[in-house]
Formats: sequence, structure tokens, C-alpha cells
Amino acid sequence: MPSAAQNGEAMVLIADSERDANLYYATRFLAPDPFIYVQMGGRRILLMSDLEVDRAKAQSRVDEVLSLSQLGRQVKARTQQEPSVLDLVDHLLRERQVKSLTVPATFGVEYADYFRSKGYTLTTKREPLFEQRAVKAEEEIRAIEQTQRATERAVQAAIDIIRESEIRGEELTIGGKPLTAEQIKKVINLHLMQNECVAQHTIVACGVQAVDPHNEGSGVLKAHQPIVMDVFPQHAQSRYYADMTRTVVKGRASDKVKRMQAAVLEGQAIAFQAIRDGADGSLIHQDILDRFTRLGFETGEMGGRMQGFFHGTGHGLGLEVHEPPRISPKRDILKAGMVVTVEPGLYYLDAGGLRIEDLVVVTQNGCRNLTQMPKVLEV
Amino acid sequence: MPSAAQNGEAMVLIADSERDANLYYATRFLAPDPFIYVQMGGRRILLMSDLEVDRAKAQSRVDEVLSLSQLGRQVKARTQQEPSVLDLVDHLLRERQVKSLTVPATFGVEYADYFRSKGYTLTTKREPLFEQRAVKAEEEIRAIEQTQRATERAVQAAIDIIRESEIRGEELTIGGKPLTAEQIKKVINLHLMQNECVAQHTIVACGVQAVDPHNEGSGVLKAHQPIVMDVFPQHAQSRYYADMTRTVVKGRASDKVKRMQAAVLEGQAIAFQAIRDGADGSLIHQDILDRFTRLGFETGEMGGRMQGFFHGTGHGLGLEVHEPPRISPKRDILKAGMVVTVEPGLYYLDAGGLRIEDLVVVTQNGCRNLTQMPKVLEV
Repeated sequence: MPSAAQNGEAMVLIADSERDANLYYATRFLAPDPFIYVQMGGRRILLMSDLEVDRAKAQSRVDEVLSLSQLGRQVKARTQQEPSVLDLVDHLLRERQVKSLTVPATFGVEYADYFRSKGYTLTTKREPLFEQRAVKAEEEIRAIEQTQRATERAVQAAIDIIRESEIRGEELTIGGKPLTAEQIKKVINLHLMQNECVAQHTIVACGVQAVDPHNEGSGVLKAHQPIVMDVFPQHAQSRYYADMTRTVVKGRASDKVKRMQAAVLEGQAIAFQAIRDGADGSLIHQDILDRFTRLGFETGEMGGRMQGFFHGTGHGLGLEVHEPPRISPKRDILKAGMVVTVEPGLYYLDAGGLRIEDLVVVTQNGCRNLTQMPKVLEV
Repeated sequence: MPSAAQNGEAMVLIADSERDANLYYATRFLAPDPFIYVQMGGRRILLMSDLEVDRAKAQSRVDEVLSLSQLGRQVKARTQQEPSVLDLVDHLLRERQVKSLTVPATFGVEYADYFRSKGYTLTTKREPLFEQRAVKAEEEIRAIEQTQRATERAVQAAIDIIRESEIRGEELTIGGKPLTAEQIKKVINLHLMQNECVAQHTIVACGVQAVDPHNEGSGVLKAHQPIVMDVFPQHAQSRYYADMTRTVVKGRASDKVKRMQAAVLEGQAIAFQAIRDGADGSLIHQDILDRFTRLGFETGEMGGRMQGFFHGTGHGLGLEVHEPPRISPKRDILKAGMVVTVEPGLYYLDAGGLRIEDLVVVTQNGCRNLTQMPKVLEV
């Protein structure tokens, strides 16, 4: 006879852990198709298909792995009806006298409607679903640093090629042929894959392309213009991300670009000074925005395009590349152990983009920079 | 004055298109953070943050891109209150006289509760959300084939190494050193990255490891035992997947493994014969399962482990590696233009795993195999 769940409460997740980092965090089990996680009375239970049940037993860090098909046969024998997968969850919850469920805010409405129709009280919870996920353990910080080291080596390899390239007219060439953003991205991504890291959407954006911070960049790289390289791979084994941006100019940077670089470094310094346990991210972000304005770098729509500093200063990072907290206009309190990016940037149609991004871990009295790579503008 | 939506109906998606293939399909715009898509009166509208609004205007295939911050200022000026993002969607929907919403079954319950509280009628829709997504256009089939060609070259490179390896005792060696599953996976993944394809969870599983079809494999490869290689990358540009499995033995395959290979090929032949517009996937799957049983290959739990043929025969593939339809115990009708895998397999603790997977496009009177790679057991 199974014991009743504490206070008749349970948490239910239904998702694939490949895309749902909370589910992976809770189970440390990776699967490409949706499966079911139930947490009740201190026990963590997985309900798995025949295809995954043995692997889940071997790999997951939960207390119990149940076979959906076995459970299905039991329920069918009793009810003489073919149960749906949700009927099986309902069966399990009733057996343990669960009456109210906590589900993530993103829980599928069809699942939610099912459980409500069966009489459960649903409470939805926004991110962070698991508060402790935002505060990284030593083991998690080490995993992030491992990905970060690989990222730095890959970006260094890219910068070495840009440094070795030659200027012909306004363009960069290597071995007599045009050097493209695509080539540099491939160097970075292959380097990362060599080190078990999967990079997607690597940004190598030159000149005006980079004024759109998410433009991945394409075509021949230009001399005397900033090249923004933003790289954020995930380690294939640990599943932890890193994130770093460096901006370089092959040739001579314009005065405006040099002033943008100095301002962005000042912006980073403001954040490094202010980040500590208890700090409010929105105040840090506002301080940087104000400093930029005082330095003459305005933000807003100009000529039909967003220009200046129009993204957040930073974001949490871990099993997802973007996770709580944010250092942005929205109030968010930092806590010791959180890992966040610090990535102020300035973007103008007449100068290009300039962004510099480091990764830091928040400590009791400040922060520790997990990034070792220097910041050099002209190469 | 904006025109009213047809019949007061709209479809709303709120997700990030990096993880939500339907949203990418509808917009052809890729973004890592959630954004809002509204389809009403034949118009497709995006609501974007400042960070993404310009890129969305340039890259997305929708009719209108609205700026959330601009809309926010308008609504605030009118209501004197700070609107939430959902308030802005509500505002837009009211303006076009929308009263009922269609949302995916996976639509976040918190969003759903918001819209219901505002008086909208919600209809949830399961996959396929967009019926036409399951039926591939010529352009999509070409994209899948491009990924498939890269997959075949990568697997061929892996097989070449296995072929060139030497047997020392029970193990494979190369250049005098043990040849591992990890090395072969790296060869495959690097080869794919060279060709703009991102492979994750590539399976190179030898012997008893492969009895669990999702075990990715590790350690030194063994002689005279089947090595299952299952590779399913996504093209970084087109976003379309491919999927292929080959099983090889370095050295001599046992009689049982040879009979398993013959049975699996027979299973594939049953599917190739039966697949056509209008065919029911569940009947095809059952036919293969029955043939296996008649050939002496039983399926079920034996000695506490699932053995035999305990996964589906195939699945749809496109912008996701697993998408509708399925060729599995569940009834699913195939239509011309669908691209599905055909991947029967047999798994026994005393022999290892044997799976062979091709990719086919369903036609009016049969199917066309998109896979060109031969099936050789001993190498």
C-alpha cells in the first residue's frame, strides 16, 4: 500500500527533457520525447514508455521509475477500459491521495484542463520553477567553466585567423581569398565540437550587420570595422552552457568605435563593481544606460532602427543559455551562486556594433569572473 | 481603423521558435526567447521586443511585425496603466474584435488562464497544429535530402574507420590503440559540422549497450558484435533534419545476428511495400511485428528487460526529428508528401541490437527512398 503524498500535494511535469531544462534538472535524464515526472511526499517518480524505461532506471536520478505499459495493464484489468496516459497519472495521484497539483506556468493547457476536470486544484508556478536551479553548486560552476574554456579556445582560434588575414581594399583575405563570416563561424564551431561542445547560432557579424545584435553575420569580413563574435555553446555531456562575446577590428578602429569600446568596458566595470548577493539587476542596468547617455551614446529608435544600448546587461546561464535572473530593466535580485553574463553593447548605423561579454558568478561580496580571455580591439 | 478578424477568431502562439517548430514553420523566424504570433483574418502578425523587432521585420515571413514597446506606450497613454505583454495581446485582439482563440494543446496554462479570464473562448488543438506541415513541399524534401546526404557521408567515414581497424583479442584497435565509440561519434559529428549540420546524441552503441535503443554508447568497440550507428542531425541553415541508422560488425557476425539482419531487412521491405497515400501506419507496424514473431523473434519483457522489437517502425521528420505521423501501434494515416523513417530493429541481451533505418517520402502509390547508403553487415 503506497504511502499518501504529503498534504495531498504533488508537482507534475510533462515534457521532453531535451527541451525542458527543469525536467532535466529534476531527473538528470535526457529524452527526446515527452515523459512524465511526479514529485510528491519527498519522492520523485518517472512514468516511462517501454522504449525508455530501462535507460531511465539506469540513468535518471529519481526515486522510482514506473512502466506506463505495466501500469496500463493493471488499470485496464481493474476498469475494463483502455486508459490514456493521463488516466494513468490520475490513477497514480489518486492512489497517493493527491488533491492539488503544482505545475509550471508553461504546462500544456490540455493537460491542465484534464487534471482540473478530474477535480484537482492546479497552482501554476513561473520561472524559476526550482529556486535552487538559479543558484549553482560548485559542480555546476565547474561544468560551466569547462564549456567557457572551450569557448575561449575557439574564439582565440578565430581571432588568430583574423589577425593573420590581409587587407585588400576594404576586405579581409586569407591565402589570397576573401575571408568570410561563414569561415570564421565554421572554425569556431568545429573547434567547439572537437571539445564536446555544440555551438548553434554563433554570431560573427561585421559592420552594420552587427547593429542587429542577433544577426548571425554573413559574407566577406571588412577591414577597419568592428567584428562582433558571440559564442554560446552547450557541452554535449554536462549540458551546461557558456557565453562570451569579443569584438575585434582588423586594421584601424575609428575614433567612434574606440570610444564605444571604452564606454562598453566602463559599463562592464560598473556591473563588476555592483554585482553581489542582494543587488538589484535593474539598478545596475540603469546605471550603465545612464553612463552611456552621459558619454554621448544615446539609446532609442533613430531613422527607423533601434540604436544605442537596447538589450539587457546580462542573463543567468546554466542548463539554458538564457535563464533567470536578468540584469535588465526588470527588477531581479541577484544571489550568491548565480552565474550571469555581463554584456553591455553599443550599436550605431554609422559605426557598427560593439559588445563585450564575460561570465561571472555572484558571490557574497562581489563577483568572480569566469572568463579569462583578454579584450583587445585592434588585431 | 484595423479590419475585424474573420468570424472573430484568431490563433495565438507564444513560444520561442528555437524550440517550437510550429512557430518557426509559421514565421520562418528563429529566436531564442519567447515571442508572440497572432493569425487572424488571413493576416499573420508578430509582436516583438526591441531586441528582435528589426530582425523580425527583415527575416520573418509574416504580414506585420509590431513593436511591443511602441504598442505598450500607446496602451499606457490611453489607460494610464503599465500593461503586461499579455495585456498588449488582449488589446490587439479586442481591436480586431476577436472573441475566440485557437491555441496548441501545449499552450502554457498561465497564458490560457489569462485569456479565459478576459472572456475569450479557447479551443486547444493537438499536433499537427498546421496540417500542411506534415505534408512536405518539394523545397522541404530537398532540404531533408541535403541533410541526409551529409549524414550518409558522415556515417560512411565512420564505417571506413571501423573497416580499417584491427582486431586485437575481442577489441577493435586503430594505430595500435583501442577504438572507442566516442572516437567514432566525434568523426561523425565533426564531419556533419563541416557540412553545416548539427548532430546531437549520435548513437554508436556496441553489443549489449545497443539493446537499449537510446543508449548513446561508450567505450572500446568490440569485434564480432553489432555496432548500431544512429545519426539524426539538423541543418543549421534550413533547420531540416535527416535520420539514418546502420548496423555493422567488424569481424564475423554470429548466426543469430545474421538472422536478425535478414529479419530487419524483411521488416523494412514490408514497410516499403505497404507505405502509400492512405495507408494506416499501425497495420504496417503490426505486420512487421507479426513477421518477426513468425521468424522466432519474440517481443516483450524477458529477464527484467524489454527485448525484441519494442519501438515504433517509424516517425515523421522535418523541422523536428520526431513529428507526426507515426508508424506505430497507434492508428495514423499516411499521406502523399509525408517524410517518414522506416527503422525496424531487434534487440536481445545475448546478441546485441540490430536496427536499420531509411528515410522515405510517401507518394500516391508507394514511397520513394531518400536514403542512398547501402546496408552491409560485416565490414
